[in-house]
Amino acid sequence: MGAINGKELIDRLDQLNAEIWFDGERITGKISEHPAFKGILETKASLYDLQLEPRLLNELTFISPDTNEPIGISYLQPKTKEDLVKRRTMMEHWARQTKGMVGRSPDYLNSVIMGFASSAPFLKGKEKCFPENIHNIYETAMSKDLTFTHTFVPPQVNRSLFNYSSSKEPISAKVIEQNEQGLVIKGARLLATQGGLTDEVLVFSTPSLFLQEDESFAFSIPSNTPGLKFICRESFVGGDSAFNHPLSSRFEEMDSLVVFDHVLVPWNRVFYYGNIEASANFLLKSSFHCFALHQTVTRQIVKSEFMLGLAQLIVETINVGEYQHIHEKLSEFIIGLETMKALLEKSEQDSKLDEFGTMRPHLIPLQIASNIFPKIYPRYCEIIQLIGASGMVTLPTEKAINSSIASDIHQYLQGSTKTAEERIKVFRLAWDLTMSSFGTRQIQYERYFFGDPIRLSSALYNTYPKEQYVKTVCEFLDIKH
Amino acid sequence: MGAINGKELIDRLDQLNAEIWFDGERITGKISEHPAFKGILETKASLYDLQLEPRLLNELTFISPDTNEPIGISYLQPKTKEDLVKRRTMMEHWARQTKGMVGRSPDYLNSVIMGFASSAPFLKGKEKCFPENIHNIYETAMSKDLTFTHTFVPPQVNRSLFNYSSSKEPISAKVIEQNEQGLVIKGARLLATQGGLTDEVLVFSTPSLFLQEDESFAFSIPSNTPGLKFICRESFVGGDSAFNHPLSSRFEEMDSLVVFDHVLVPWNRVFYYGNIEASANFLLKSSFHCFALHQTVTRQIVKSEFMLGLAQLIVETINVGEYQHIHEKLSEFIIGLETMKALLEKSEQDSKLDEFGTMRPHLIPLQIASNIFPKIYPRYCEIIQLIGASGMVTLPTEKAINSSIASDIHQYLQGSTKTAEERIKVFRLAWDLTMSSFGTRQIQYERYFFGDPIRLSSALYNTYPKEQYVKTVCEFLDIKH
Amino acid sequence: MGAINGKELIDRLDQLNAEIWFDGERITGKISEHPAFKGILETKASLYDLQLEPRLLNELTFISPDTNEPIGISYLQPKTKEDLVKRRTMMEHWARQTKGMVGRSPDYLNSVIMGFASSAPFLKGKEKCFPENIHNIYETAMSKDLTFTHTFVPPQVNRSLFNYSSSKEPISAKVIEQNEQGLVIKGARLLATQGGLTDEVLVFSTPSLFLQEDESFAFSIPSNTPGLKFICRESFVGGDSAFNHPLSSRFEEMDSLVVFDHVLVPWNRVFYYGNIEASANFLLKSSFHCFALHQTVTRQIVKSEFMLGLAQLIVETINVGEYQHIHEKLSEFIIGLETMKALLEKSEQDSKLDEFGTMRPHLIPLQIASNIFPKIYPRYCEIIQLIGASGMVTLPTEKAINSSIASDIHQYLQGSTKTAEERIKVFRLAWDLTMSSFGTRQIQYERYFFGDPIRLSSALYNTYPKEQYVKTVCEFLDIKH
Amino acid sequence: MGAINGKELIDRLDQLNAEIWFDGERITGKISEHPAFKGILETKASLYDLQLEPRLLNELTFISPDTNEPIGISYLQPKTKEDLVKRRTMMEHWARQTKGMVGRSPDYLNSVIMGFASSAPFLKGKEKCFPENIHNIYETAMSKDLTFTHTFVPPQVNRSLFNYSSSKEPISAKVIEQNEQGLVIKGARLLATQGGLTDEVLVFSTPSLFLQEDESFAFSIPSNTPGLKFICRESFVGGDSAFNHPLSSRFEEMDSLVVFDHVLVPWNRVFYYGNIEASANFLLKSSFHCFALHQTVTRQIVKSEFMLGLAQLIVETINVGEYQHIHEKLSEFIIGLETMKALLEKSEQDSKLDEFGTMRPHLIPLQIASNIFPKIYPRYCEIIQLIGASGMVTLPTEKAINSSIASDIHQYLQGSTKTAEERIKVFRLAWDLTMSSFGTRQIQYERYFFGDPIRLSSALYNTYPKEQYVKTVCEFLDIKH
Repeated sequence: MGAINGKELIDRLDQLNAEIWFDGERITGKISEHPAFKGILETKASLYDLQLEPRLLNELTFISPDTNEPIGISYLQPKTKEDLVKRRTMMEHWARQTKGMVGRSPDYLNSVIMGFASSAPFLKGKEKCFPENIHNIYETAMSKDLTFTHTFVPPQVNRSLFNYSSSKEPISAKVIEQNEQGLVIKGARLLATQGGLTDEVLVFSTPSLFLQEDESFAFSIPSNTPGLKFICRESFVGGDSAFNHPLSSRFEEMDSLVVFDHVLVPWNRVFYYGNIEASANFLLKSSFHCFALHQTVTRQIVKSEFMLGLAQLIVETINVGEYQHIHEKLSEFIIGLETMKALLEKSEQDSKLDEFGTMRPHLIPLQIASNIFPKIYPRYCEIIQLIGASGMVTLPTEKAINSSIASDIHQYLQGSTKTAEERIKVFRLAWDLTMSSFGTRQIQYERYFFGDPIRLSSALYNTYPKEQYVKTVCEFLDIKH
Repeated sequence: MGAINGKELIDRLDQLNAEIWFDGERITGKISEHPAFKGILETKASLYDLQLEPRLLNELTFISPDTNEPIGISYLQPKTKEDLVKRRTMMEHWARQTKGMVGRSPDYLNSVIMGFASSAPFLKGKEKCFPENIHNIYETAMSKDLTFTHTFVPPQVNRSLFNYSSSKEPISAKVIEQNEQGLVIKGARLLATQGGLTDEVLVFSTPSLFLQEDESFAFSIPSNTPGLKFICRESFVGGDSAFNHPLSSRFEEMDSLVVFDHVLVPWNRVFYYGNIEASANFLLKSSFHCFALHQTVTRQIVKSEFMLGLAQLIVETINVGEYQHIHEKLSEFIIGLETMKALLEKSEQDSKLDEFGTMRPHLIPLQIASNIFPKIYPRYCEIIQLIGASGMVTLPTEKAINSSIASDIHQYLQGSTKTAEERIKVFRLAWDLTMSSFGTRQIQYERYFFGDPIRLSSALYNTYPKEQYVKTVCEFLDIKH
Repeated sequence: MGAINGKELIDRLDQLNAEIWFDGERITGKISEHPAFKGILETKASLYDLQLEPRLLNELTFISPDTNEPIGISYLQPKTKEDLVKRRTMMEHWARQTKGMVGRSPDYLNSVIMGFASSAPFLKGKEKCFPENIHNIYETAMSKDLTFTHTFVPPQVNRSLFNYSSSKEPISAKVIEQNEQGLVIKGARLLATQGGLTDEVLVFSTPSLFLQEDESFAFSIPSNTPGLKFICRESFVGGDSAFNHPLSSRFEEMDSLVVFDHVLVPWNRVFYYGNIEASANFLLKSSFHCFALHQTVTRQIVKSEFMLGLAQLIVETINVGEYQHIHEKLSEFIIGLETMKALLEKSEQDSKLDEFGTMRPHLIPLQIASNIFPKIYPRYCEIIQLIGASGMVTLPTEKAINSSIASDIHQYLQGSTKTAEERIKVFRLAWDLTMSSFGTRQIQYERYFFGDPIRLSSALYNTYPKEQYVKTVCEFLDIKH
Repeated sequence: MGAINGKELIDRLDQLNAEIWFDGERITGKISEHPAFKGILETKASLYDLQLEPRLLNELTFISPDTNEPIGISYLQPKTKEDLVKRRTMMEHWARQTKGMVGRSPDYLNSVIMGFASSAPFLKGKEKCFPENIHNIYETAMSKDLTFTHTFVPPQVNRSLFNYSSSKEPISAKVIEQNEQGLVIKGARLLATQGGLTDEVLVFSTPSLFLQEDESFAFSIPSNTPGLKFICRESFVGGDSAFNHPLSSRFEEMDSLVVFDHVLVPWNRVFYYGNIEASANFLLKSSFHCFALHQTVTRQIVKSEFMLGLAQLIVETINVGEYQHIHEKLSEFIIGLETMKALLEKSEQDSKLDEFGTMRPHLIPLQIASNIFPKIYPRYCEIIQLIGASGMVTLPTEKAINSSIASDIHQYLQGSTKTAEERIKVFRLAWDLTMSSFGTRQIQYERYFFGDPIRLSSALYNTYPKEQYVKTVCEFLDIKH
């Protein structure tokens, strides 16, 4: 089959009937018509329509050598630098469609699955490891154009360093039984974004100090697997009106707690389990991080461009472009944006074929970008608030602009070069991006995208090759090293 | 009459029937029953009930020497340092009731009116100035326990430095006619917080480069004066549930654009008009800033205490108190809080009787506090987000906790030392304070409480007495000064 | 005898003949004539002359009830708030004399000794503790107007958290023998400022994870005790010319490594030893920290005033006072200065009599100040560099200004409102304060004055009373605490 | 002749006998033997020796097509991307030789002269412009391997925005006469680094608000032109010992005030004069900025590598690598370094042939780098101080280590993995880099390398193409742009 269109996606998700709990009730009926989900699903559908538009087909899909069908390029295993640029180009198209606001745009996990599959040979011959299952999922995903979410963070009960959970009933999801059919899982994982809105859920464990064998596994299962429940947080859709809520009405993805209530994972869906060392090494040595970061940084750049455009639009709207402190603030966007671009391109320029024959973007520049963005994104939002000032609060609704009080609004809320309606649109966008519950969730999301920023810097320090620089200094000082 | 209770306040406001526009419609019916206003009005009522509670009567009211009635202490003209402490104590009580979340807590503008009245003699004999009208309003306000809002910022059409408005129709409110009855005003002002929810609106102009005589005035008029309209922004009340929205359900104040549609201001309500110099000097030399700041800093301290408590409660809930970076983050709260307290107390210690016989808190320490808080408040919010991490996003609703999915929530969202329900309450509060649209509006509000932070630092630099320090250096260097 | 004058101090120190090593050679001859020390000793002498100036005698000394002699007020045990203000006034006088540049101004350690003595009763009856020796040293110090330095930091060999030294030969000073005469000490301590330039050296241990009994002690011994060596770092005196090096020529204090080469500490000089618990508790519970901080914050305020004066003088000299970013930068000085003042005064306002009858400044505001200053002081220096810009580098010498090239210098280096000579004086001062090796050592010194800033914030977090604030939040949420 | 060696350079500079004033006296005798200059001249000589080393000849020189002689690659006009990489490789070699500490490494101004010459055709046919003179200087410079400094900043008398100098006698250098032989210049310019230590001085004006015709010119003249005087600041050479002062003994460049005392600039040395528009446009449109920045960023990267190496060496020396805050601090170096590298490489990847046939590095990434480095360099220095802590102050001299007190130093100042001598070397380097007067001058120098950081951000904001991003937002909002 290969690449699908938007309608095919929506139909499939509507039929899935996954167990999604929203505001204390299990959702029944079409998920695509639920107020909390219809916006994001329309947006996702638009991405799939885009990939089949004739003018873009070549940039968004490739022809499978096996089936001769078009496949989404996010599934392409790159063999050359040109392939990396192709992948980036595809991801830019989708990111522009979502203004970079959809963190779990399907190309993200497609890239992860592709990275897993490309590195699967690493697991060959290792105990309790089933690389062929990874390969099969990848093949199936391509041929059906499957979408995924993933979940890997244990519940935040106790974050003390030396905490060793002693709860009798599992909290963090673990294997409570193995039988002929597969593994039986009980417990929970935090924060599957778009949980229940994808065909599949990828589940894996990340290494930690006291990780037990029964918590160490990776697998992918359909979202409607019996016993699998998605418990949603409150929705951050502000309402249907794109005038009032230009972002949340389209891009609010929802996050959910994932509960495994005696979920049976069939053996042919298990990637590995109970082999702590193999699992840790696979995550470390596979190309998964490289490709996940490559997609993310691409998306974050498009988002940065959008934010720079918005900031400058506000500057023009209220005519503050002559102030030196405004120059300094806007320069922060420019510096951030160009830095991210340079790092992304360097990761491609310095890419190398790995031992499995995959052209990997170089990890270090991407790691740097992933250390930078969580700091500059909240600052971008703060700057927009600082430039917008009182304009961020004076926010009449669409109804008001079309009511009998409209003439006052048009007169008193006009901008320097904009009508009141235009001006309000600009500021409502700025508000939805930085001050609505949708916007603040984006801040928290970007901040923690690759984990605790504090651990990110430790990881960077520990893995970065510093030896050569120390050696140079020792030689200069004529001391042993 | 003197100090009133909550019911009296509500009845009066319900009968006011001011022209308030909300989401394109003029509000009819009792304002205290409107979903967008009932929470804040209940909260305000609770403040007035508090002042008549026998155990607090002495701390919240004083006996009028004229009428022998109890009057709210925020109206007290201080003559001694003890009076300043009395004023602060009263304001602390109210701030604790609102957790410092209500910026236009009535004591704020009561203090402003008292400051105006105390300094009114400055205007005596000056052209087009009517100090007796200020005095009368003050007397009336005390005897009826009136509540006020104020508005002084022109619409944000064009913030260019050298902009001189050339619109034919007024945008910023101005006098378009004077007649026997009074001044006729047309145009708008930005952002009356609680606009329409108070008995009176105090209107005055702030000095600026191109201020014209017809824009230069001060007066107070009832909120239901004909032609006076309050156009509300979108409401940030998240809903009725105090579980779900512990702050916005109680403390969302609403901001509104104030439109003057040929509003007649009777002569006996005019403080001054058309005398640019007198108006500028009055704002500069009256004690208004001192008392407004004294109230604000008091409120901000109570708010800081609440935030420190919340931050520490999160630390305990997820057991992260052993991390050094947590110590550093919590220390920022402690340092900020203690600094604000020290500055507030210094303003009282260094207070002096002014030329009009009023004991003024010393302005400089309060100015310092007003430069500090707009910077630390957003940082407090950021720190709470950084400590809360994923907990800030996993937010089931009250309904969910009481539904058939509740047992999963209780198991998987429990805290280290807290039940899931307690834990969710803590995080929902943290979210409402820092990430809801209520919370982000609070950030913007505190940031701009006393105007553009950039102008605040220029004002501080320009007014601060630096000469003695320069002189010391010149003497050390033996150079002329 | 009581309070001495400058000449008496110099004579005593010249006769001391302590073992001071400078640039590989032991200093012989009068220490007060050595190029590295004469400036600071002249400055110290000027402090002692000041205290006997008739016009200041009352502000700088008190009359001993025992001997009827004048005693330096830094030795005064305060019993009232007025005594605290007296102490502060005295310390301000000395700090103004040194512009706050002399960290080990004698009043610092006088205050420490006084704090030790005031709290000595705490040690009464505790094993291996000799409170009477503390008392005697204090009495002797007062009657002879002794000066002290102190040393307590072990050498910085290995700062790993779990490091436990295994060197055979002691590195950190420890007791290697006890005999009838006293304790025999071998090893070293870091960084006695003014080591060898004081009558006495106070030595004590600070609590740490693996502190051993033989490293746990406190005593005071004369600087010329046999076996006691002071190994100086390079001198940061830039030269004799006060024009060229206005600060380092007067205020460079020198730091030294203190070596104990089988130093015998007589029993009557031992405060305690080998009682780890008592020693830790004494440091924690004595008033020593309060008084040391009270002196330090007073000095740092005077220094801040001087820096604000200098910054403003540069602004005037090159006429940059109209720039908004200059206002912001200067405001940082003003905010820092006023904050420190408010905290200092709060510590006095909130002072309480302790269990030993001493009026202690409240510790918390002083702790806050000691967390703030290490951060703002380097920033002050940075701001001065940013304002001074190229002027910080164009620095002709005194000789050049008086040479045949002088006319070019006078023409081309003139300031906006200053002659070239005045302008150069201003910038040389700015340079000496922030960019000379004297200036950068001051930065490092203020930054670490009370220890590692990171540990300071942990200490603040751990000791600050947060409970009441947590309780308020729990009540608001109606959850147990 | 082409590329010269170190001895040839030194001989030439010794014979130049430029008028250099140091500490009030004119230098006579060989400049290469003067204590303030011998270190830097030895270092410069080593660069010229390097370029003729057979193993590096190909990487540091190219063969002139005209003369068949080897020419330093910094003079190469790049025609391809490979040429840019060649240029960078050459500059890396020299930067490694100086650890990036020599800002006026000769390749810097060679690149400027090459950029001027490459863009000279721009001036063809413009009034009072002599592109052929630029070309001739460039040819001469190549064939003789000339070295240059430059000077363009007017004296810092009055930096007020609207200041218009009214001094009768010129302060900023200007043309006071034109005659048959050339222009006669009187006045001064600030801060020629290495003034008098180069063959030539390049002088040009930068555009400013009130620039007059008589101040608008560009030319290059020999350093020993009559009437040209270099007035040095105080020397920051700490002494001859490379142990004590590893950097200042080798790399201190000296800055000087340049005085033009009726200096005659022959017509054949004039590039242009009295044509304000042409001069402004030439600086804007020539490739000069691109090549100057390309060299500078290359040097700053090598310097960053050195600083990262040093920081990590300190971490190892005192064994603090396990602390999380150390990871964060070291990560700042890594992030800064990798960002600068990515930007430099992007400038090469995005290079384009300009209208004059020169392959220009893309300006934007280099502009970004030049906005970043002035902020991160001072932070690097601060971090080194924060890691080094007390070790930055305990600094015995070389003589001390070889004296009779040596055994104590060896015992008590040893490092965790280093001998005391090694440890002291490490810390003396850290001190010389960040706390000596040499080090702080480096901070000020890097901070202002491309001018006032505040103006840099305005320039970036004003020139950066933002339109496309604004357009995207307007389309998203469906508003006109």
